[in-house]
Amino acid sequence: MAELVNITFDEINISDQCNYKKKMTEKDLVLFSAVSGDVNPVHLDKTFAANSIFKERIAHGMWSASLVSATLATVMPGPGTIYLSQSIEFHRPVKVDDELEVILTAKSKDEVKKTVTFICDVKNQLGKSVASGEAVVIAPTKKIRVEKPELPEITIN
Amino acid sequence: MAELVNITFDEINISDQCNYKKKMTEKDLVLFSAVSGDVNPVHLDKTFAANSIFKERIAHGMWSASLVSATLATVMPGPGTIYLSQSIEFHRPVKVDDELEVILTAKSKDEVKKTVTFICDVKNQLGKSVASGEAVVIAPTKKIRVEKPELPEITIN
Repeated sequence: MAELVNITFDEINISDQCNYKKKMTEKDLVLFSAVSGDVNPVHLDKTFAANSIFKERIAHGMWSASLVSATLATVMPGPGTIYLSQSIEFHRPVKVDDELEVILTAKSKDEVKKTVTFICDVKNQLGKSVASGEAVVIAPTKKIRVEKPELPEITIN
Repeated sequence: MAELVNITFDEINISDQCNYKKKMTEKDLVLFSAVSGDVNPVHLDKTFAANSIFKERIAHGMWSASLVSATLATVMPGPGTIYLSQSIEFHRPVKVDDELEVILTAKSKDEVKKTVTFICDVKNQLGKSVASGEAVVIAPTKKIRVEKPELPEITIN
């Protein structure tokens, strides 16, 4: 049984890092379009995208941001985290089959509010930053171990 | 045939507004978890969520942010927009069946860089802000009319 185990406020030290990797797939283009309603043809229409400055379909910028969110929610701090804010700058397009890595670095902690600020960097398989910014969360104060939810199968017809 | 028609840099005036609405569904919880990898049980596990401070499953914060992105990409400025940055603060949890409305307001324009800064507010059906921030985009300079891509059917088994 896979588990999610959080890293509590007290366990997080300044400069601590964690990472999370996810590959961009064609399926992600469709799912992110559906869940957000962002059906901009640069994500979905090969011909339109070929004639854009990107030359091919690109991922939604906010998809890269969603990987940052996934890292905060499942790796560090993990379950029990309350997301307060995120800033994100988009540096490079992300294309199908790109392998992204999110790297979070604990930048500062507020002992009263139990908040942690993380530097967030998202790199592609060439080590180039595709997005970066900062996140502020309330970190959990209690240790949580929870079964990792299994997702149902999703079919695109 | 549904079309997407952009609003070019020159057509956007300071204080111009647009909106975009989307209802949160159980399906969105699963799809956003799948596409981001954020399987935090607060989004997926009814029992875990009932024992959290939220008392029930909540939407991913970045889902609300993805609606802002969808508004920029499909309404104003629409096709041809290049997303440069987003800041977002999360104010309130979003729950299943909440009806969100994104409101974008053009705050400033840079005539040299062709960038537009938008104030972004996301409200729920009670008119309460669930998230807000600012977006900076390069707005398209050419008018684009494009067929609105139709999404394939997505089935959750």
